[in-house]
Amino acid sequence: MIVLGIDPGTARMGYGLVERDGSRLRSVDHGCIETVPDRALPERLLFLHQAVTELIAEHAPQVVGVERLFFNKNVQTAFAVGQARGVVLLAAAQAGLPVYEYGPHEVKMAVTGYGKAPKDQVQRMVQMILGLASLPRPDDAADALAVAVCLANAWRPSDALVATR
Amino acid sequence: MIVLGIDPGTARMGYGLVERDGSRLRSVDHGCIETVPDRALPERLLFLHQAVTELIAEHAPQVVGVERLFFNKNVQTAFAVGQARGVVLLAAAQAGLPVYEYGPHEVKMAVTGYGKAPKDQVQRMVQMILGLASLPRPDDAADALAVAVCLANAWRPSDALVATR
Repeated sequence: MIVLGIDPGTARMGYGLVERDGSRLRSVDHGCIETVPDRALPERLLFLHQAVTELIAEHAPQVVGVERLFFNKNVQTAFAVGQARGVVLLAAAQAGLPVYEYGPHEVKMAVTGYGKAPKDQVQRMVQMILGLASLPRPDDAADALAVAVCLANAWRPSDALVATR
Repeated sequence: MIVLGIDPGTARMGYGLVERDGSRLRSVDHGCIETVPDRALPERLLFLHQAVTELIAEHAPQVVGVERLFFNKNVQTAFAVGQARGVVLLAAAQAGLPVYEYGPHEVKMAVTGYGKAPKDQVQRMVQMILGLASLPRPDDAADALAVAVCLANAWRPSDALVATR
């Protein structure tokens, strides 16, 4: 089975695709979708939606994982990321794919065994687990890949957390 | 020309369609799209996106107005509304329609001449401007109709505020 992990954002959206074959995980693809800052927001969301829809069509994942974000107080950031996340969830629903979400703590725990692991440790573990030649880059793609690893390892429809709200 | 106004939300999304003929405004339709609370979020966003896409297909508006919201500190609300707003902007972009946004102050100013007008005054003015038999209901639909009135009156591509961020 193939898992698509997404780290949502309006300016930059990371994605990572991981294939699980028994207990083995393999990297299929990862990268970062960037939108042009001086374009109108609807156009940027259209671009993101098309890109995610194309990733789903090309790689046919069976499930989508999205990083659950915590915002301290930056309401504008929450609003902006919410818009990007909305079109990702829509693309998944349009393809009939279930969506699961994981918080940063869960992702770190699943990848490194330590919920407060620093970012570079997470990236090294993702590199090792997937047998990548180098550290996954850029950061958004690495984060998305970590979500995909977490979901690929943990996924059982019964115990994963459904993104219901 | 026909204008579509939207008051975005995940649980309830108000819409209002207004036709401008010279200086006269006429109500075309208004209402509230409600999603089922116990459905998964991606499914609810799919429903909202389909509903907005159908409204656009049915009434062929030339422009879409969305209420710009201000959040004091409720980050979760901002995030939730952001997701709903994202799929509205996407539906507009997919239809090739420009999107403009207005803050509550601008809407009230355009409809009542007073930026801090209370809600019931705004509703009475919307009723009067559009020649409705009764006050527009529910509140979400009334808000969306007020945005449509504001946009229908004000719209010149050069001076309206493009929703760029």
